[in-house]
Amino acid sequence: MDKHQRFALVAQLWNQNMPFNQLLGFEISRFDDERSEISFSWQDKLIGNPMQKILHGGVTASALDLAGGVVAAANIIANMDEVNPKTIQENISKLGTIDLRTDFLRPGRGEHFVASAHIIRSGSKVAVARMELHNELGDHIAFGTGTYMVG
Amino acid sequence: MDKHQRFALVAQLWNQNMPFNQLLGFEISRFDDERSEISFSWQDKLIGNPMQKILHGGVTASALDLAGGVVAAANIIANMDEVNPKTIQENISKLGTIDLRTDFLRPGRGEHFVASAHIIRSGSKVAVARMELHNELGDHIAFGTGTYMVG
Amino acid sequence: MDKHQRFALVAQLWNQNMPFNQLLGFEISRFDDERSEISFSWQDKLIGNPMQKILHGGVTASALDLAGGVVAAANIIANMDEVNPKTIQENISKLGTIDLRTDFLRPGRGEHFVASAHIIRSGSKVAVARMELHNELGDHIAFGTGTYMVG
Amino acid sequence: MDKHQRFALVAQLWNQNMPFNQLLGFEISRFDDERSEISFSWQDKLIGNPMQKILHGGVTASALDLAGGVVAAANIIANMDEVNPKTIQENISKLGTIDLRTDFLRPGRGEHFVASAHIIRSGSKVAVARMELHNELGDHIAFGTGTYMVG
Repeated sequence: MDKHQRFALVAQLWNQNMPFNQLLGFEISRFDDERSEISFSWQDKLIGNPMQKILHGGVTASALDLAGGVVAAANIIANMDEVNPKTIQENISKLGTIDLRTDFLRPGRGEHFVASAHIIRSGSKVAVARMELHNELGDHIAFGTGTYMVG
Repeated sequence: MDKHQRFALVAQLWNQNMPFNQLLGFEISRFDDERSEISFSWQDKLIGNPMQKILHGGVTASALDLAGGVVAAANIIANMDEVNPKTIQENISKLGTIDLRTDFLRPGRGEHFVASAHIIRSGSKVAVARMELHNELGDHIAFGTGTYMVG
Repeated sequence: MDKHQRFALVAQLWNQNMPFNQLLGFEISRFDDERSEISFSWQDKLIGNPMQKILHGGVTASALDLAGGVVAAANIIANMDEVNPKTIQENISKLGTIDLRTDFLRPGRGEHFVASAHIIRSGSKVAVARMELHNELGDHIAFGTGTYMVG
Repeated sequence: MDKHQRFALVAQLWNQNMPFNQLLGFEISRFDDERSEISFSWQDKLIGNPMQKILHGGVTASALDLAGGVVAAANIIANMDEVNPKTIQENISKLGTIDLRTDFLRPGRGEHFVASAHIIRSGSKVAVARMELHNELGDHIAFGTGTYMVG
């Protein structure tokens, strides 16, 4: 399996088996060690503030956390020596968010949203990712910084 | 209306009208300027990692953000001079999360969870709250720090 | 006074009157509402870890905080209606850091360092800035995110 | 060497060999795996804002970072099996701050300051500490949260 076959395998697995992401309508639309992307559409159930009709801050934090986790997972997988479904499983089972900062820049309005992430610190034990959330008009809704346990 | 009548009014309003909190089963169980509490029970749809059966990090961040927002709202309401449903509405409409840090301390396992918050910096424009998430066994699952726009 | 005359005035004032920045050898080398820069050179007294000869994390945090504060101040000044030394003074006296996150990416080694900042959220009361620290080789040593009271 | 002898050894070593801490007048006054303390006195060179005569935010961040690093180091040392000056040295050489959040609650005024820290997440690779800064009147000046590499 080359790197991109491994990524496709895990993306499919995660998209089909993560209940909370499915509840929110999150889809991993790019699973790559360079950059990850999570896509989702507006749904009324994601509303935090009913007066203003904007995304709940928790939806934003969830999307950013997932985007960072995906790019961190892709980096774990890209660096593995012996690759098969079992070893991939074992290696990404160590993944966990240590801490996450979310900066809410603009009200979460829009029809379609993309959260993206890239790695700013990579290591054998800990990785740090930066994340962004934009809507379909390119409005920059939120920034995030997450520290992940990767080994 | 005394302070606690105002709190009860807003707690009821928010519990009945915030779609995302209802989706996650969050209930504001304490609405007070001293300390707020959000209660929720385990549901399989809140699972992030299906292998480990633990809460999605976004559920934790959502509960902490709401707990901090409630205690910040209670402080806005407690400090109002002229109080009626319309002025309460106007004053809390300014409330918004500026930034949120979540520290994930232990896996999110349990049957029942309480997120609590108290204010560490109060001001006419910005308030800062500290939050904690515990399960029914008292396990300390997460810490949070949130900065809120309040005026 | 046009915008850039005001910036030059405050940059000079701050460079000459901030004891801690002088102690660390920090110089505001760019004071602008688009982007600010703080420059400083290696000095042995800035060492945190004597075994590794790297900058103390507090030096990094100090440089990032100052860079963010400068770009926030420049935004306050750029938006003022009536400008004279007294009104500038009054307006920037409201400036204060609410919270600061520093991400340490690489060991703080080098001969010359530049901390830079730009605004990611601007408002009449609160601004949020993102900061970076690089050395003379372009190594990216640290990232920062700061929330500032501006009004 | 029992645990407290090891702590005393490292505290002395660090107090005498960390240039930046000496520059700022920081003294490790408690080196313990339960709780660490850093003490320092007001000096005019620590001033950030000359108009208000308050500590530079970077002084606060430096004290909090050091307090967190000390309690993290004490936890590394407390958990070592084979203890001698060389193995202590090797083990604490892995220590490094990954990220640090500082919440500035009140102006940094006072004659004497104590930064304290305790561990909220301990692990073989990463530890998280919470920190506080108080002055001699008990005013709570700042909060901090730091994530440290420990193994």
